Amino acid sequence: MPRAVILASRPTGVVQAENFEIVDQPYQPLQSGEIRVINEYLSVEPAMRGWIADTHNYSGSIPLGSVMRAIGVGTVVESRDSTYHEGERLCGWFGWQHEAVVKADAVIRRVARDDLSPSLALGILGINGVTAFLALTGIGNPQPGETVVVSTAAGAVGSAVGQIATILGARTLGITSGPVKVRQCIDLFKYQNALDYKTSDFKDRIAEICRQGIDVYYDNTSGRITDSVLPHLAVGSRIIVCGTASIPQWAPWPQGPRVERHLLVKRARMEGFVIFDHMEWQSAIDQLSAWIRQGKLQYVEEFLDGIESCPDAIAGLYRGENHGKRIIRLS
Amino acid sequence: MPRAVILASRPTGVVQAENFEIVDQPYQPLQSGEIRVINEYLSVEPAMRGWIADTHNYSGSIPLGSVMRAIGVGTVVESRDSTYHEGERLCGWFGWQHEAVVKADAVIRRVARDDLSPSLALGILGINGVTAFLALTGIGNPQPGETVVVSTAAGAVGSAVGQIATILGARTLGITSGPVKVRQCIDLFKYQNALDYKTSDFKDRIAEICRQGIDVYYDNTSGRITDSVLPHLAVGSRIIVCGTASIPQWAPWPQGPRVERHLLVKRARMEGFVIFDHMEWQSAIDQLSAWIRQGKLQYVEEFLDGIESCPDAIAGLYRGENHGKRIIRLS
Repeated sequence: MPRAVILASRPTGVVQAENFEIVDQPYQPLQSGEIRVINEYLSVEPAMRGWIADTHNYSGSIPLGSVMRAIGVGTVVESRDSTYHEGERLCGWFGWQHEAVVKADAVIRRVARDDLSPSLALGILGINGVTAFLALTGIGNPQPGETVVVSTAAGAVGSAVGQIATILGARTLGITSGPVKVRQCIDLFKYQNALDYKTSDFKDRIAEICRQGIDVYYDNTSGRITDSVLPHLAVGSRIIVCGTASIPQWAPWPQGPRVERHLLVKRARMEGFVIFDHMEWQSAIDQLSAWIRQGKLQYVEEFLDGIESCPDAIAGLYRGENHGKRIIRLS
Repeated sequence: MPRAVILASRPTGVVQAENFEIVDQPYQPLQSGEIRVINEYLSVEPAMRGWIADTHNYSGSIPLGSVMRAIGVGTVVESRDSTYHEGERLCGWFGWQHEAVVKADAVIRRVARDDLSPSLALGILGINGVTAFLALTGIGNPQPGETVVVSTAAGAVGSAVGQIATILGARTLGITSGPVKVRQCIDLFKYQNALDYKTSDFKDRIAEICRQGIDVYYDNTSGRITDSVLPHLAVGSRIIVCGTASIPQWAPWPQGPRVERHLLVKRARMEGFVIFDHMEWQSAIDQLSAWIRQGKLQYVEEFLDGIESCPDAIAGLYRGENHGKRIIRLS
């Protein structure tokens, strides 16, 4: 019998496995305009923490007792909608469940049966890669020779940001944790420099590497890493606020060094980016696909097998366990 | 004998009268390319604190023992330059002194002998008004019906920002201190609402007045006022960082609530503005002059007489003593 992961309780701080429950899915006949999708892959995102939280957010809170919101890739097995047909593979808001019964507006895009894995629609050719591409080129707009610094540099978004910045001709510094990810930043994701923020000389090394100033800072963390980066901004620099992974919770609201003087003295711009404001993904996906086929854009996927892997998957991201884009594989 | 105000010592924190010394100016013959200007009016700016500080800034530090950097309005009495001639009234970097011997590149603009007071070139038709106009329209870009919040709302920059926002069709909330300035914001500067940030219900009143969200925040203060404003940003809002008047010093670096989550959740943009990046002032001055003549743009000037008023004039701004744009009148 197909099963689904529901939100059973609301966490304070990072969501844990015990906040979820796995339940059987009773058979649900299709209404007009609906499609039935059998999921093959389900996404796990750091942003899920925010979707679950009870506080005001860019997307509405997920109600208690409902299926966990998630992007999935799956195949249509039954359709009462005129747009999508049986046998088509789709990517959309299909939830953490084996079987999704949804309206057509839950679909993000069709996933071609070609040389690229369908799971990429959840990572480098999905929310992560498109976020990296649109936020870096839109807000960051790095020019050849400029310095781009990326936090969570080996992550699903960060690793794409670093590589796109390199393709665009920028100098890149990746900030990550631990020697394994530092190596990966240099060897696989081709950062010119990479630093482990947990080392004692981290702040000195940023100053040394970014002596000419940081033109673009792609921030996925906030917190101590960002505090170490901002004093080295160049005049006219751009800061993309894409995530706040290093802040475990926002109640009570965390304090940090004030940013206003940095922004004023350097005439810098700091701007939040949320991918759901930008629904024109196709040209980004075409460009990213081309770079993958040309061998210019690398990615790492980490598969967890079975729907039983869902409940602890978000907490694991925040424990820093994952190596690459974390994906639940169902089939 | 003409006299000049020199920087005698460097303050920690806000500059005080005792950091300056008034000295006699020996006669200085003109070199080729120089002009001699007899100053009529000298400017006093909050930003002077930064020009004097020993720390990195957007303009170089003023060397100890040299004449205090300031904009002045005066008349050319002798010229060995082909551009500016005897009898012309100019506005430029003439310093806190009776008589300036400068090269032509110190001149900002000619000041017409018309119906508007030449002193306006130091305020509403100078650095303050042009800053307000360019930063508000450039970064803020308020649309009709949007909500614009201004800190130091009755100040030389803030009062212009509020009025320009109203002219552009925005709803305005001015934040200032004390009932006199609150009244002035409403009666003279035509803010729809004005609040005294020292009252106990300040935060509640912001929430109430800005229930639909703040689209543009023109920040001249940083600090506690800004901390009370940022939780009420609207989606897609713009924050202009124009000054940090409420921060007495940046060593040790002050802490405050982190801004990243506000910027991310509201996809807001926070950007520093420094007028010296923008040297195309004429169209702003033409527009501001037209609004003054139409009675749409009010200003308040406060004159301190004599060069002896200079040393304590900046500290007085930070004590909140001034009422309107503070100007030293020499003639």
